[in-house]
Amino acid sequence: MAASEIDRLIQQLARLPGLGPRSARRAALHLLQKRETALLPLVDSLRRAAECIVPCSNCGNLDDCDPCRICQDSRREAASLCVVEEVGDLWALERSGAFRGRYHVLGGCLSALDGRGPEQLNLARLWQRAEDPAVKEIILALSATVDGQTTAHYIAERLAHLPVQLTRLGQGVPVGGDLDYLDDGTLLAAFSARRPA
Amino acid sequence: MAASEIDRLIQQLARLPGLGPRSARRAALHLLQKRETALLPLVDSLRRAAECIVPCSNCGNLDDCDPCRICQDSRREAASLCVVEEVGDLWALERSGAFRGRYHVLGGCLSALDGRGPEQLNLARLWQRAEDPAVKEIILALSATVDGQTTAHYIAERLAHLPVQLTRLGQGVPVGGDLDYLDDGTLLAAFSARRPA
Repeated sequence: MAASEIDRLIQQLARLPGLGPRSARRAALHLLQKRETALLPLVDSLRRAAECIVPCSNCGNLDDCDPCRICQDSRREAASLCVVEEVGDLWALERSGAFRGRYHVLGGCLSALDGRGPEQLNLARLWQRAEDPAVKEIILALSATVDGQTTAHYIAERLAHLPVQLTRLGQGVPVGGDLDYLDDGTLLAAFSARRPA
Repeated sequence: MAASEIDRLIQQLARLPGLGPRSARRAALHLLQKRETALLPLVDSLRRAAECIVPCSNCGNLDDCDPCRICQDSRREAASLCVVEEVGDLWALERSGAFRGRYHVLGGCLSALDGRGPEQLNLARLWQRAEDPAVKEIILALSATVDGQTTAHYIAERLAHLPVQLTRLGQGVPVGGDLDYLDDGTLLAAFSARRPA
C-alpha cells in the first residue's frame, strides 16, 4: 500500500508531459531510493528555477536574467527578428543553429476555438520592436496549422505599413522524409515550392 | 540558447527513468510555464517526500511512518510473509491485490556480476522474522532471472531448518500472453507446470 505522501508525489510527477502513471511510479521510486544523489539535487534545481527563471521583458524568452542572454548578446544580428509561438520553438531553432538574429515569443497563437485573441499574446511589444529601424526582416516562424497561419496573417497585416521584410518558413518535404508517408497538404506545398534541380 | 539554470534543471529531469533529453526539455518547459500550478506543487511534494519518507525498519518498505502502514496493519495475515527484491515489486503486488500478508523487501538480489553479496541485502532481519512462530509460509516472490533464482535458492537453504513452508511464484504463460511471442524458457516452464484442464 503506497503511503499518502508517496501517492501525492506520484500524482505530481504523473502531471509532467511524457510521464504516465506507470512511469511516474518508477520515477518516484527512483527518487526515493536515491535520496542524496537524485531527490535532493532535483528539489534544489526546481527551487532555483522557481526563484530565478523569469520571462524576458523584451522578447518573452525564459532565462535567469532579464533581458535574456539572447537579447543581451551583441553578436546576434539586430537586423532579423524571428517570431515564434512558444519558448520550446525558440529552443528548437537555437539547437538547429539555423538562425543568428533575435527572437520574439508570442506565448501561443490566435485561436478562435480556445478563445485566444490578440490581447492574450505578447504582441504590443512586437509592434514596438518592429518599428526599430535596425530591424530589416521579420521571420514569422509559426506552426503550419490553421491557427498558426491565421496568426502569421494577422501579424503580416498589422506590420504591412512598415519598411520591414516579412518572411515565413519554407514548406515542403522534411529532410529524411518518405513521400509515401506525407500528407496531401505537405505534398501540395512541396510541389508548389519546387526548385530547379 | 537555454540558460544555465534551465540546462541544469533539464539535466536533473533527464536522469529520471522514462525521461530522455527531449521529454526532459518538454517537462522543464511545462514546469517553467506553469510556475504556480505545476512547479511549486512539485517542489513541495518532493521536499515533503525527502523529509518524511523513510525505509521501514521492519520490512524495508518505504513509507512516511516507521513501521510502515502494512507492518502496522493488524488486518494483514501474520502467517504469510512475501519476500520481494524491491519496493516497486511490493507496489505491484499490492496493486494486484493478490496478497494479504506482510512483506519483506531485500533491496535487490544476490549478483556475482555486480558484486552484491548477502551482507548487502536486508537479510539479517529476514532470518529474525522467519523465526517468529506466527509465520507459517514464506513466499519467495523474486524475479525469474538467474540472480533472482540464486537469491531464492540461497534463502531457501538458510531457512530449511525452520518449520515454515517455503513457496515460489508459479511460472507459465502470462495472462493475455500469445504463445507465439513467448521465449523458450517460459514455454518449458509452462509445460512442466501444466495442470488438468
